[in-house]
Amino acid sequence: MSQISTIAFDADDTLWHNENLFEEHHSKYCELLSEFHDAKTVEKTLFSTEMRNLELYGYGVKSFMLSSIETAIELTKGSISAEELKRIIHFGQEMLRHPVELLEGVKETVATLASQYQLILITKGDLRDQERKIAMSGLAHHFEHAEVVSDKNVETYDRVFHRLGIDPQKLLMVGNSLKSDILPVLDLGGYAAYIPYHLTWEHERVENAPDNHSRFHELPSIKQLPGLLDSLK
Amino acid sequence: MSQISTIAFDADDTLWHNENLFEEHHSKYCELLSEFHDAKTVEKTLFSTEMRNLELYGYGVKSFMLSSIETAIELTKGSISAEELKRIIHFGQEMLRHPVELLEGVKETVATLASQYQLILITKGDLRDQERKIAMSGLAHHFEHAEVVSDKNVETYDRVFHRLGIDPQKLLMVGNSLKSDILPVLDLGGYAAYIPYHLTWEHERVENAPDNHSRFHELPSIKQLPGLLDSLK
Repeated sequence: MSQISTIAFDADDTLWHNENLFEEHHSKYCELLSEFHDAKTVEKTLFSTEMRNLELYGYGVKSFMLSSIETAIELTKGSISAEELKRIIHFGQEMLRHPVELLEGVKETVATLASQYQLILITKGDLRDQERKIAMSGLAHHFEHAEVVSDKNVETYDRVFHRLGIDPQKLLMVGNSLKSDILPVLDLGGYAAYIPYHLTWEHERVENAPDNHSRFHELPSIKQLPGLLDSLK
Repeated sequence: MSQISTIAFDADDTLWHNENLFEEHHSKYCELLSEFHDAKTVEKTLFSTEMRNLELYGYGVKSFMLSSIETAIELTKGSISAEELKRIIHFGQEMLRHPVELLEGVKETVATLASQYQLILITKGDLRDQERKIAMSGLAHHFEHAEVVSDKNVETYDRVFHRLGIDPQKLLMVGNSLKSDILPVLDLGGYAAYIPYHLTWEHERVENAPDNHSRFHELPSIKQLPGLLDSLK
């Protein structure tokens, strides 16, 4: 029997679509550079630039924009035109302006759970962009607390739980990334509901879901979350 | 008689140098574009791009980098070379990598006050970059709490104080920006120590310091802070 009193949600690709915007940007970006290189080379070089800059830039769209520009210059040996680079900036600005599209079932499920549990939101990335999405999601009032962190690991979760006075043994984390949402919270003694999104950024991939872990649950959709919580009571 | 128990510090240009790095970038940037436009036009256009993008990008070096690139393309009507744009990216990366240089007297003053007051840090800007600077400053252990916010206004201060259980009437805010550090905290009933930095970004400028405000104090240096606090006891 559990005594779950708090549900912590990841945001991008858990509550609303996000990775699909990056995929869309990737397609346009590969198209723009297609006279120079095939899509595979472009993707690989972009990923490698992103990883090189991760420590310096952190996560988020602006970091992605800067790495996209740098990669385009590198891949074209400087022969890309300023006008084409301007298009890359515009792609990124479109991403930042994009409406927030909730995943199916999110609106109803979050509203239902908000009446029974303390809900919090823990998301990583760019502060301004994440705050904009939280505000535009129409869900903000359901969350007692929303925390934007620069990375999601055992230390950051521990710090957030400690600050909010939350016992991780009474918490369920819901997210689409094993690496960022699930494993660190299991490590801290919490429960985790893993709801995969149909796309996963290469950097977030880990090999395997926990095997036979009593506090780990995988769900096909957020709609199964109230049922899971009932079964854990 | 006051009962100040918490001192909240701004970070950039209050604890460590920051605006000087932007000024340095501006000089290199104007030099790079000098064959196209005079420095005044470059500065003016860059500032206008930054203001146009502020809502979308928020504050910080990455936003500045993206606006610098966009402005360079605009000002050269697309004739700037990719190699020159690469140099602009490198200028920004240098800023992000730059060592944290504490202002004179900061190290000693913060250490002294930490033994007598609860110290917190409230800074706006890019999450990753601010966290990096806090970590590199060598001051992190003196602060009970460090909060990076996307903007500094009455609402954000109110939210932070509320969350930390701090009564603003028992708080002194220390900062170099009247607009972002001083006026909102005075509005909330707090005390404020304004310590101007020798450079102020145009966006942070407000016309006048508060006139004859009993909770407002202007100091030439952080070294006068313990004396001010003693006089307020």
